[in-house]
Order: sequence, then C-alpha cells, then structure tokens
Amino acid sequence: MNNNYFGIIMAGGVGSRFWPLSTAEYPKQFHDVLGTGRTLLQSTFDRLKKVIPEHQIFVVTLAEYTELTLRQLPELTPHQIIAEPKGMNTAPSNLYAAKLIYEINPAANIVVAPSDHVIMDSQGFLKKLRLALKESNQKDILITLGIKPTRPDTGYGYIQFLTEGRQALKKVKTFTEKPGLELAEAFCQSGDFLWNAGIFIWRAEVILKQFKKHLPDMYESFQKVNSLMNHETRVKNIKKTYSLLQMISIDHGIMEKSEEVYVIPSSFGWTDLGTLKSLYELSNKDKEGNAKKGKHIMTYNSKNSLIYTTQNKAVVVDGLEDYIVVDTQRALLICGMDKDQRIKTFVSDLKLNKGEEFT
Amino acid sequence: MNNNYFGIIMAGGVGSRFWPLSTAEYPKQFHDVLGTGRTLLQSTFDRLKKVIPEHQIFVVTLAEYTELTLRQLPELTPHQIIAEPKGMNTAPSNLYAAKLIYEINPAANIVVAPSDHVIMDSQGFLKKLRLALKESNQKDILITLGIKPTRPDTGYGYIQFLTEGRQALKKVKTFTEKPGLELAEAFCQSGDFLWNAGIFIWRAEVILKQFKKHLPDMYESFQKVNSLMNHETRVKNIKKTYSLLQMISIDHGIMEKSEEVYVIPSSFGWTDLGTLKSLYELSNKDKEGNAKKGKHIMTYNSKNSLIYTTQNKAVVVDGLEDYIVVDTQRALLICGMDKDQRIKTFVSDLKLNKGEEFT
Repeated sequence: MNNNYFGIIMAGGVGSRFWPLSTAEYPKQFHDVLGTGRTLLQSTFDRLKKVIPEHQIFVVTLAEYTELTLRQLPELTPHQIIAEPKGMNTAPSNLYAAKLIYEINPAANIVVAPSDHVIMDSQGFLKKLRLALKESNQKDILITLGIKPTRPDTGYGYIQFLTEGRQALKKVKTFTEKPGLELAEAFCQSGDFLWNAGIFIWRAEVILKQFKKHLPDMYESFQKVNSLMNHETRVKNIKKTYSLLQMISIDHGIMEKSEEVYVIPSSFGWTDLGTLKSLYELSNKDKEGNAKKGKHIMTYNSKNSLIYTTQNKAVVVDGLEDYIVVDTQRALLICGMDKDQRIKTFVSDLKLNKGEEFT
Repeated sequence: MNNNYFGIIMAGGVGSRFWPLSTAEYPKQFHDVLGTGRTLLQSTFDRLKKVIPEHQIFVVTLAEYTELTLRQLPELTPHQIIAEPKGMNTAPSNLYAAKLIYEINPAANIVVAPSDHVIMDSQGFLKKLRLALKESNQKDILITLGIKPTRPDTGYGYIQFLTEGRQALKKVKTFTEKPGLELAEAFCQSGDFLWNAGIFIWRAEVILKQFKKHLPDMYESFQKVNSLMNHETRVKNIKKTYSLLQMISIDHGIMEKSEEVYVIPSSFGWTDLGTLKSLYELSNKDKEGNAKKGKHIMTYNSKNSLIYTTQNKAVVVDGLEDYIVVDTQRALLICGMDKDQRIKTFVSDLKLNKGEEFT
C-alpha cells in the first residue's frame, strides 16, 4: 500500500430526497439501507481501505455527525474526522480536507468518494481507482471516474469526453447537469457521455493550486486554518471561515472551469442512492414488482411499489401501483414513484409547518 | 329513576373490520375513536346512566377485557362485569346477562346497547328509550329501536314493520340481513323499513321465556350457572357451558323467530361504527374531503381519504383518492375506501402468515 495515498469520504449530506429514511439527525449514509449488514458509510470505508492505509482515510462531515461517524467507524481516530460547522456544498469540504492532508504529507495523492453511493463490483472499482492513482501521481491533473450510462437518467450529471487516443484516461470536454429526457437519450446513444459519480482522484498539491486559481477568495479564507492549531482554535477559526464562504460544489467551482480534467470511463455497478426510487430500483422485488423492506409486509392488488418500514409492525397495502410507502418511527410517507423528486418540497413544507422535529 | 331498570352494554367484539385501530388486545369500543375525550364504551355508559341506576348497568365482555373495562368505567364494581370465556355472538351474551339480572331482580326491565355505535342526538335517544321501557314494563314483548334509513346502506340489517295504527310502537314483520343495493334502495323508498341498531328493550322474565322457547338447548346449558355461585365455580361452569354452545346472534336466534317483536321507529343520529369507512363518514373533513386524524398530517393532490395516525409522527400523503390510511404502533393499513369490507380478510391472512402479534 502506498504511503502517499489518502482518502476523503464525503459524509455531510442530509439526504432530504431520501426522507423519511434519511433525517437531519440520522442521514442515509449512516443507515444500512440495503440490508447488507454495513451502513453506506461503512461500505465506502471498506472499499477504500483496500487501497489506502486506514489511518489516512478522512471523513468530512458535519460537526454534529462526528460521534455517529466514530461509532460506525471505530478504526478512526478523532483527528480523521474533518468536521464542518455547516454544509456549504462540496467545494469548501474538498478544500478544507485537501489543505489538512497536504500539511500532513505534501506528496499526498487523494481519492475523494461520496458515502451515499452503491458500488456492486468492488473489484472493478478498485482496478479503476489504482489506475487513476497511478496517473494522478505522475501528472498534475484532476481525474474523475465516469460511469458508462445504462439508461437515459435525467437525475444525474453527465461528462462528455474527447474520444481521441486509445488510453484509458480521457480528456474531459464538458459537464452537463441533469439534462432533459431527450438530451439524456442523445447522450446515452452518443457513447462519449458518462455519468458524473463524484469520485475524484488528485494530488493535494494539484487540487490546492486549482482552488487558488479558480476560487481564490475561498482559498484565501482557508489560510486561517491549519492542522497544527489546537482543536479549540481550529473550531473557532473554521466557524469564522465557513460563515464567509460561498456555497458551491466542486463541480461548478473547479471541474467545469479547469483545463486539467480527465475522466476514466468505468462500469462497476454504480448507483447514486439519491432518491427512494433509486433504492426501489436496486432492491429485490417479488413477482408483482414490489420491493418489500420489513418483516411483516403483505400486498394485495399492488405492483411496482416500494413498501418500507423500519418498525416491527405489520403493513397491509391494497391497490397501490407505482407508489412509495416509507414508514419510520418519526414519519410516514406515501407518494407516487415518480413524485420522489418532490420529497424535498414535502420536507421543507413540513419543517415550515410542523418544525424540525420530523425532518 | 326506576329501580327495576337495568342495562346491558355489549362490549365483547374485537372489531376486526376496524383494524388496525381495533385489535384483539385493544378493541375499538375501548378507544376514543371520535376524539371526544370519552371512549365508545364510556359514551355508551354515559348515555345509559341518564335512565338506569349506575350500579345496575352491566357490561358483557370477554374475560380478557375485564380489567380494561374496569379501568375505563371506575364507577363499576367487578360484579357488574359479565365475563365471557370466548365470543359466541350475541345470543349467549344476552342469555347469560339476562339470567344473572333476573336472579338479582325478577322484575328487571332491561336495555341492551352495543358499545361501538355512535349516537349524535342523546336526548332523542333517551326519549325513545324511556318510551320503550314504559312499553316493555307493561307488555310481554321484545322491543327494538329501529333507525329510519338515510341512505341505501348495504352493510346494515333492515327491519320491516307493519304500518297499521298510529302508535309509536310497531309490530315487526321481517328481518333482512345486509341486502343488495337494489333491494336496499327499495327498502329506503318504501318507508316501512328501518335499520336494525341492535338496541333492545325487554323484561328479563320475557326474554328468558323466549330463550326457553326458541333456543331450548342453550337455555338448558345456562342452568349450570347462577349469580349465587362463588366466583371460581362460576368461572369454571361458564367455561364448560360456553364450550358446548352454538354460536348464534340474538337476531337469528330469537328476534327472527319470535312473534312478540316490536319496533319503535327512531332518528337520533345513529351510526354503526362498524368499518373505517363509517369513521371517515362521521369525521370532519378539509375542503378536499380528507379526514385527517393526527397532529402532523399533510396531504398533496389527495382527496376523499381517511388519514389516521395514533402516533406522534409526521404523515405526508401525495396522490391518494378515496383511500384509507391507518397507522398505529403495531400496523399500517393502506387500502381503497370501498375495500374496507375486506379488512377482515387482511386480518385473517395476517394472523395466518405472521401470527397473532399484529392483530
């Protein structure tokens, strides 16, 4: 294992499109959503530690999830948790983590991995990761793993690459956020578009230079924080820093602007567990196409629905088609399968009308 | 208040068409289903005690509900609970209770009232009740209060009466159990059909004679039980008696056979809270026609549905029309409004497949 390899697991999201399974208090990355025996966060850690020394895997998350993270990953020491005072999207998280890692090892070669994705073919993933790390070690570039699309999904971002050459690493031409269906279909057919999986590989030195170039104000703000400060000072300073930041994603802030972005086309059974529909799609189904999560679920005249309870209770559903039913201690959601993008609206309405208690 | 007046509240049902609000452990009559602050059982008691001395109101229920009954009606002494070892329908309950009451007071004049009905106009009810008690005191007859139908409901039994004479008390011609819709419509239009509300008024002596005549075997079986026995002996004997009984309703067993049945046509806002649909119909609704029972319920694109949670949780429903959603700690039911008659099937399937735990 290479001592310059570092990992950053992004685990700060609240997963509001996954409500009520995911709540602000207990977001989806901390759940064993697929019933594998390991939470999404743990599965991400399990994958990375095959390539990266455990003590060099960092988790970026909200300060309030620090304890939860340490409980789920007892292999970590507290200094491996990079606690954000609030969620400001992925650019600040990446800058903060890369800076701290750079101070530990200026030659650090970093893998950035979201914690709420599913990867069915771990071996395939690790093969691509090793290739990417080798490339980023030799070149001053930003690498992303791009997933070969299997359907015209309108919920993902797409990466177009230049098809010249036969090497595995392709220069990126454009990023396109969630396209319309027609465009997504065209992307799928063209063969030079990939899904943006948010998995990045770069040396700390390289990404920091890119921040300095494309997000100079943000870069400057972070000069007030370093890994040598005592805990209290760092917490105080990072709070100050975050209060002044622009909320922006690494994709918008860096990837779309940089000339040095490359992609490795990949296929390793990747799914962004972004919505409850994606959970339905990944789940085993009965012959009526119902995915039943819970021990005591009975369906009648129902099909193509996700029926999920986290409670030890009986669930009887009669006459639903293409529906999502999710029941937790805190909330019950019933909505059409294709309405799942509206769940964010439900959650914000709920917060407004009923307070934070249920979200 | 007349010292010969006695009451029998029938409270032994498990209300399986009301599942999961009603469960075998905690049937609907013990719930404050309408949110009035009093359970259905308590409301029934409250009504009867206006006419009948409290210490002469008996509750017939399953032995397992004895404690629950005493907790809800602390006015009662344990000897006012007539505990059945198992549910054998209403003929045995009535015989058992009438016999014990007769032994206390051979001149007893009894009101039999189900505990799971709603009566909106208590004054109207009491007026009819007093009239009936006066009649039953003077005549050796069986009296039932029949409700003037307001719609062709196919879930109720109907009583046809002879229209001769101008007196309030009418001789009964026929009983018809749950008719088809066409028949029910004809019944409604004819003006001489009433809903069978299961509210009976008769002297103990009179109903016992009717049992002796129409159900002689059952009458004979009950000779092994009397009110003078010590508790233990009575429990032992009643168990033996019940193990040999025929399961039959008072309607089939006595009312349909007897020549001495009279009815008082009544209108006092009566509803049999038999099904969840009837609960929906009785409930306040928002402008989309949704009846929401629970503090934190939000509906989108939904109408004419009953959304009920007994839990302190948020419920978000999108895109349901004419549905029933009932959520309790033990179970969640989602089914079409007009499928509510199938709930018994769901419950028996559940019992078969998942055990007693949830029913």
